[in-house]
Amino acid sequence: MTTPTTNPSDHGVSRQLAQAIVASAPEDIPSGARREAARALVNYMGCALGGTDHPARDISLEALSGLSGHGDATVLGRTEKVDIALASFPNGISAHIHDYDDTTPSNYIHSTFSVASALFAHASTTPVTGEDFLHAFILGFVAVTRIGDATYPAHHQAGWHSTGSVGVFGAAIAVAKLLNLDEERMLWTIGLAATQSAGLRDNFGSMAKSFHPGAAARSAVEAALLARAGFTTGSTPLEGPRGFVAVTAQRQADFSHVTDGLGREFRLAGNTYKPFQCGIVVHPTIDACRELHGKGIDPRQIEKVELRVARLVRDLYDIRNPAIGLQGTFSIYHAAAIGLVRGKGGLDEFTDAAVEDPDLVAMQKRVEAIADATVSEDSVHVPWSCRMVRASRISWKPHWATLNALSATLSSKRSSGTRFPILNSGHVDRVVAQCWDIADLQDVGDLARATVLASSEAAQESA
Amino acid sequence: MTTPTTNPSDHGVSRQLAQAIVASAPEDIPSGARREAARALVNYMGCALGGTDHPARDISLEALSGLSGHGDATVLGRTEKVDIALASFPNGISAHIHDYDDTTPSNYIHSTFSVASALFAHASTTPVTGEDFLHAFILGFVAVTRIGDATYPAHHQAGWHSTGSVGVFGAAIAVAKLLNLDEERMLWTIGLAATQSAGLRDNFGSMAKSFHPGAAARSAVEAALLARAGFTTGSTPLEGPRGFVAVTAQRQADFSHVTDGLGREFRLAGNTYKPFQCGIVVHPTIDACRELHGKGIDPRQIEKVELRVARLVRDLYDIRNPAIGLQGTFSIYHAAAIGLVRGKGGLDEFTDAAVEDPDLVAMQKRVEAIADATVSEDSVHVPWSCRMVRASRISWKPHWATLNALSATLSSKRSSGTRFPILNSGHVDRVVAQCWDIADLQDVGDLARATVLASSEAAQESA
Repeated sequence: MTTPTTNPSDHGVSRQLAQAIVASAPEDIPSGARREAARALVNYMGCALGGTDHPARDISLEALSGLSGHGDATVLGRTEKVDIALASFPNGISAHIHDYDDTTPSNYIHSTFSVASALFAHASTTPVTGEDFLHAFILGFVAVTRIGDATYPAHHQAGWHSTGSVGVFGAAIAVAKLLNLDEERMLWTIGLAATQSAGLRDNFGSMAKSFHPGAAARSAVEAALLARAGFTTGSTPLEGPRGFVAVTAQRQADFSHVTDGLGREFRLAGNTYKPFQCGIVVHPTIDACRELHGKGIDPRQIEKVELRVARLVRDLYDIRNPAIGLQGTFSIYHAAAIGLVRGKGGLDEFTDAAVEDPDLVAMQKRVEAIADATVSEDSVHVPWSCRMVRASRISWKPHWATLNALSATLSSKRSSGTRFPILNSGHVDRVVAQCWDIADLQDVGDLARATVLASSEAAQESA
Repeated sequence: MTTPTTNPSDHGVSRQLAQAIVASAPEDIPSGARREAARALVNYMGCALGGTDHPARDISLEALSGLSGHGDATVLGRTEKVDIALASFPNGISAHIHDYDDTTPSNYIHSTFSVASALFAHASTTPVTGEDFLHAFILGFVAVTRIGDATYPAHHQAGWHSTGSVGVFGAAIAVAKLLNLDEERMLWTIGLAATQSAGLRDNFGSMAKSFHPGAAARSAVEAALLARAGFTTGSTPLEGPRGFVAVTAQRQADFSHVTDGLGREFRLAGNTYKPFQCGIVVHPTIDACRELHGKGIDPRQIEKVELRVARLVRDLYDIRNPAIGLQGTFSIYHAAAIGLVRGKGGLDEFTDAAVEDPDLVAMQKRVEAIADATVSEDSVHVPWSCRMVRASRISWKPHWATLNALSATLSSKRSSGTRFPILNSGHVDRVVAQCWDIADLQDVGDLARATVLASSEAAQESA
């Protein structure tokens, strides 16, 4: 596993990565990758605005805003003005709080979220052209994907929430690129990202899950600022004997995922978008159960559902009686229930009210989930028994192509009830259009600021 | 290793710890522990002030001070005013930059540094009596020691710099105690500390090593503030299947170190103080070589020194040709050279100039270090050959008792050239006296502010 194909002992893996980032120019990026990057930003913006009014975001701003004297950075969808690092933090929280992310299926990382959270905060204070922003975003996204692929499954299985713990690298690299750092300082940026990499999966089902991409974005901004000022680190943050891979992934990495095709291959095509507001590996269960719902089977007549799922799915989503909505997103039982009873899995299915809905509670109690080594992580088998249909079975296989279409992202989010508390729909349409055409913007700060309307103006315009 | 003696399945280890912290009152602390705590704070203050003018501290303040609008927190020994979280960060950097810490020999953690860095920043903005400050410090210190002992050696051997990665727990708990948080919020504080635990040993020999206690202190302040505001986490941050021990210590912990005697035993007596400015496990080498120096052996006549050291020492301190002073602190070869050539190991032996001193360079090239399983980590064997004394040998055994005396801390630091750039010696004496009698202070903020004198005043007084 540890044998890299490109002999990083000549130039360490971390230095190779730093060199490639520094050498990259916008024209190196193929148009397909640019289009996928814009799609990821559209989805990110929908999530960040959709999560704007969650208590987790209010609490984090209330708790920490006293720390920020008077910054000029914009928090997406909020009227407060704070410093750059602090702005990136609630951006990450609101984007991730509803678990409605994009996902790289090869490593289960929501690669956009830490990166975009840091970049939009930075752009809100420092003029950045759309071209440079998109370029930096792509470099950051690809770094997350490469490091994520290199360390999957060891890093993830150890219990890290890799959306933050790997996301911090991409966010730091992206900001450092906009700061135009040289190779040595880019290496220190990677070093400071590595040494701040954090985030435990013990927090799944609580607000602290969304803390991870927020904190990663914030650490990343500071990493780039410190490196620019000359703050030094070790020189082998990824590959050293006490670097990121050794310490957090039990030395199990295939570094060729980091180094092969660096600067030439941009791995955005594999990105996918969640149609449901929960973890990606529960999606097959919801979708398969929706299929049963679609067949017109009365959920009250289903005596028992014995899901067969991959061990990872069973281990991660085993919250038996979720007490709050956030816990519902980590309950395979609740997931099956909403598919069978409601035939959908949107915002309204993961509220505090939903996990107390008697019909859903009654249904989830009849669901069992059995780990089955023959079932892959992106599949599910749903044998069920009910009074009317004694023995039947449905097997759900992944159809990433569908998930990858825009129809399954923003539009489904909207139709499933995502609310945009500060903006009216006209504004949302304009912000989304600007995300699609981000490369044409003179200053991405205008886009960040467009997500904020003083309540009076919003009230006026929607009147 | 994972069988705790106090059945934490009834009440999770994390919750037991939270309960004990919340229940603790100042009068629970025996006077011996209070005296040791004051000693640790005296030593901390000497280190923090001694490191005030290091470039790492200038750089970190320059890079990040733009993030802090206008706070009212005092950075120890600096005239800048920043926010609480930002103040705790350079406090940790300057205290740790010269590697002149206190150390708990059972886990090699410099337990005071993250805790005191956060507490002094907090106290500089919020009135805190010396009694409450000392109490909170002791609770934080003991939490670091307990969690450090529970997870040693697995956590340390994995490559974590536990001074930061474990220190964050103590710092967060200490601040949360001063904020008077209830049990649930204390548990979330521990959860937010756990999920920010970070710091890779790849950075040893660079500025980023001192970043770790600084960042831990900062994360800790924010953990307590977020928890106070209601930001939730998982409920098993230490012991959960994807909590701190599982993720960062390969599930290898003896939780009895956390739970046994909680609230009754305060483990400060084992704390030790470094007489040399480098890692604790190189101390035997410097001391044994000083002994040779003291015998009057001319270093130019020593042909070769073959140190026998524990594997940990060989692995950690293997920088062969240190290029800068910070790397010298991680070179067993340089350590032997300064002992043999200069007979001391103070500030002047770990400067950039020292690692280029031709006499030291010539000597360190003749030093070899061989890992020897029969040598313990706090010992060294120094067989050497020289033209005059053909075969001899010195074995150095630990004498912690000496190290534990104050004479071996502040006074040796001072005599070895620790500089206090802002304060003159009269002021230093007053600050040190206040640390010894910290329990009597009405407001520890006065002590924090006493470390800062406007340059004009300092110039005037020393004139």
